[in-house]
Amino acid sequence: MVKRVGVAILGLGVVGGGTYQTLVEHRDFYLKTQQVDISVEKVLDLNLERLKALGVPQEAIAKNIEEVLADPNVDIVVETIGGIGVAKTFVTAALRAAKTVVTSNKELICKFSHELEKIAKHNHCGLYYEASCVGGVPIIRTLLDGVQANHIQSMMGIVNGTTNYILTKMTYEGADYAEVLKEAQKLGYAEANPTADVDGYDSMYKLSILSSMAFHTKIPYTKIFREGISAVNVKDIAYGREFGYTLKLLAIGKNTDKGIEVRVHPTFIPSTHPLASVNDSFNAVYLTGDAVDDVMLYGRGAGALPTASAVVSDVIYAATHTDIKYSTFKNNATAENNVKFVSDFESAYYIRLSVEDKAGVLAKITGIFGKCGISIVQITQKSGAEDGERVPLVVITHKTKENAAKNAASKINASGIGTVEAVIRVEE
Amino acid sequence: MVKRVGVAILGLGVVGGGTYQTLVEHRDFYLKTQQVDISVEKVLDLNLERLKALGVPQEAIAKNIEEVLADPNVDIVVETIGGIGVAKTFVTAALRAAKTVVTSNKELICKFSHELEKIAKHNHCGLYYEASCVGGVPIIRTLLDGVQANHIQSMMGIVNGTTNYILTKMTYEGADYAEVLKEAQKLGYAEANPTADVDGYDSMYKLSILSSMAFHTKIPYTKIFREGISAVNVKDIAYGREFGYTLKLLAIGKNTDKGIEVRVHPTFIPSTHPLASVNDSFNAVYLTGDAVDDVMLYGRGAGALPTASAVVSDVIYAATHTDIKYSTFKNNATAENNVKFVSDFESAYYIRLSVEDKAGVLAKITGIFGKCGISIVQITQKSGAEDGERVPLVVITHKTKENAAKNAASKINASGIGTVEAVIRVEE
Repeated sequence: MVKRVGVAILGLGVVGGGTYQTLVEHRDFYLKTQQVDISVEKVLDLNLERLKALGVPQEAIAKNIEEVLADPNVDIVVETIGGIGVAKTFVTAALRAAKTVVTSNKELICKFSHELEKIAKHNHCGLYYEASCVGGVPIIRTLLDGVQANHIQSMMGIVNGTTNYILTKMTYEGADYAEVLKEAQKLGYAEANPTADVDGYDSMYKLSILSSMAFHTKIPYTKIFREGISAVNVKDIAYGREFGYTLKLLAIGKNTDKGIEVRVHPTFIPSTHPLASVNDSFNAVYLTGDAVDDVMLYGRGAGALPTASAVVSDVIYAATHTDIKYSTFKNNATAENNVKFVSDFESAYYIRLSVEDKAGVLAKITGIFGKCGISIVQITQKSGAEDGERVPLVVITHKTKENAAKNAASKINASGIGTVEAVIRVEE
Repeated sequence: MVKRVGVAILGLGVVGGGTYQTLVEHRDFYLKTQQVDISVEKVLDLNLERLKALGVPQEAIAKNIEEVLADPNVDIVVETIGGIGVAKTFVTAALRAAKTVVTSNKELICKFSHELEKIAKHNHCGLYYEASCVGGVPIIRTLLDGVQANHIQSMMGIVNGTTNYILTKMTYEGADYAEVLKEAQKLGYAEANPTADVDGYDSMYKLSILSSMAFHTKIPYTKIFREGISAVNVKDIAYGREFGYTLKLLAIGKNTDKGIEVRVHPTFIPSTHPLASVNDSFNAVYLTGDAVDDVMLYGRGAGALPTASAVVSDVIYAATHTDIKYSTFKNNATAENNVKFVSDFESAYYIRLSVEDKAGVLAKITGIFGKCGISIVQITQKSGAEDGERVPLVVITHKTKENAAKNAASKINASGIGTVEAVIRVEE
C-alpha cells in the first residue's frame, strides 16, 4: 500500500536546493523502496532565479507562507532558511497548522526546541531535525533508535567542518592560523565573518542539541563552556604531536555522578584515538554508552547533498512512522532547573610556559604546580632560544580541576620566573 | 502513558545473559526515558546454573518453548541461541504464535530471513535483527532510518573482530599468522576451530544481510566471493605498508550499473583511509551514498554488553514503533533471480612474484601483464635474496578484471621466469 505525502520547502538555498533535487530525483526510488510517494507540492523563496535554476514548476512556487500552509496537499514542511527570525515564525505557523516540520536549523532547535515541541504535541504533528547536527551523519537517529538502550556516559564530537579543516592544515602543513583561515575563506570553507565557526558557537549549538538528547534533559547552550581556535598557535600543535597528541576542536559532553559537564574547546587527544584521524571538513561523534561501549559515527558534516540526505531521511521517517511524533526530543526530559551542571570540570592539561633558562627554574615551576595540587606527568624543555633568553617549557599534567589549573597559571605569571603562553586541555 | 511489554529470552549464553542483565538493570531507565516498562517474563535455557548465576527468579524460568509461547504476558521473544537448528524451530514457532522476535542470529537471518519475514507478516508481528551484524553498532537502523534517502553505491566493512585482531597484530608486531592465531585462541578472541572467522564465513553472512538491506534486494550468501586470511603472509603486509597500504579483511558490496558485486577477501586500502585505523577487535562499516557521500560507523562488533545493546535497542524500537512491523527487511525487495551479479569484478592488484635476479626478467614480466591487458602502476624489486637466487618483485596494477589478473598469474607461472607468491586486491 503506497502512502502519498506532500512536502513544502521553505528556503531553497544550499540545503533547501539539495533537498528539492534529492526529493525530485529519487521519487521513484522512494516509491519502490519505502512505499511512499513523496511529491514537492510547494516551495517558498524570495529568489525566483534560484527556483528557475532548480527547475521548479511554476505551479509549485508559493507567493507566501499562507499559501503553503493553506494547501491541504502539504503534509510536511521542510524549513531550510536558517536563523531565528522568519524561520521561527514560519515553523511556528506550520506546526500550528498541524503540519509536521523537518528542519536543518541548529540555532532554532537549540534555542526553541522546547517551545516548538509543545506546539507540535498540541497539534499532533512531528518536529524532526536530524539535519541540524553533523550534516548527513545520522547521529540523532542513532541516539534515538540505535543506542537508546544505553546510559550515554560521554560524547566527544568534531561537529564543525570549518575549524577541523583549519586545524588539519595547521597540523599537517605547519601553516599559521591566520594564513589557513584566509585560504579557507578563499575556498568557501570559511565565511567572511568566521566567528560562528572559529569561536565555537556552531559547535556549541550542536552540542546543546546532541547532549540534550544523549542525556535525556535540556542542556541550554548558556551552560556550555566555549573556547574557539583563533588563539591556537601552530607551535603547540607541533609540540603536542611530539607527545603523541593531535589537536581537535571538540564538543564534549559527560554525564557523571557529579553532574553534567558540557564544553567546546581545542583539545589534545591521543593521535591513536579514532577522532584524531578525522581530517579536513569531515565530522565525527564518538559516544560511550554503558552497554555498547565506544561507538563512532563519521561523515560529512555539511554540504548541499549530505545535509539533504538527513532532511529527506527525516521526511521519509515522518511519513512512514505515523505513531511516533514529536519524538525527536522526549518531552519528559528532566527540567533544566533540576539538572546539576559541573563547571569546575576535571581534565588533564598541556601547558606551555616561557621561562628563564637557568638553574632552579624547573624546581620553582614544579613547586608551584605541586602547591596547587597538580601532579605532573611530564615536563620538557624545548630548544628554541639562545642562551640567556627565555625558553619554552611544556608541562603535561595528570587530571586536575579547571580552577586548580587557572590558579597555577596565575601563580606562575605572578612569580616572574615564567609566563604561561598556552593552556590546552587533554582528553584520553 | 506508559506501555507495558513482556519479554522472553531464549538462550542465556554470552549475548542472552548480557541482554537479561541489561533489561533488568535498566528497567527504570527505560520507563523514564522511553515510557515503556519492559519486564523479562520468561527465560529458557537448559543450563540452570547459568540462570542461577544471573539471578533469574524461579517463576521466570520456563520448562520448554511451549510454556514461553503460551504466556500471554510475553509480547517479544529474544532469540540468542545461535545456529539454524533449535533456534530456527523456536523463532518460527514464536512468529506463528504472533510474538515479535528480536534475534542476534546472523546465520539464521542470512539463510532464512525471507521465509521468517513471510511468517511474521502473516501473523502481524515483527522480526528485528540489529544484533546479527556488527554487535552494538547500529548499522541496520542506519540503513533503514538514517541513510534511506540514498542510493547506497558501496559498502566496505570490517565486520569480524577475530580476523581484525589477527591482522592488527601481524601489521604492528610483525608476527606470523599461525603465531597470532594461537595467541588469539589463548585469549579467547578466536575459537578452537577458527574456520568460521578466519575463512570469512562470518563476514560473508553479515555481508549478505547488510548488502541485502543496502541494495534493497536479497543477496544470497552463495553469491558472495569469499577468501579468508589464513594464507596471508606477514611479508606482504609489510611490503604493502611501504606502498602506503594497510591490509584488512573487508566485506565489500557494490551496486553499479553493471550489477551487484559482493565479496569478502583480504584487501589493501590506503593507510589514510578511515577503515585502516580500525584496529584490534573493533569493527566498522564504511558506506557511500549518492547524497550523503561517505559515512562510517565504528564500534564493538561483539561482546556480551555491546551486542545486548543492539538486542535491547531493537526491543525498545519494537515496543515503541507499533505501526512499523516486519520492517527490518523490506518485503518488496527485488526477487533474487532478477538481480544481476558481477563475478568478474574489477579491482587493482598487489602481486608478489619471486623471479630470477637477472637482466631481461623485468621486461618479460611486464610484457606478460601488457599482453593480458593489465596496466602497471608500480613495479619494485625488493631486496631479500643473494645473487643468483630468486628475488621478490612486487607489482601494483591499475584496476583490472579479476579474470585478467588470474590469466596473467597463470602465464607468469607457466613462463618459468617467475612464480606468483601472493595476490591481494587493492581498494582505493
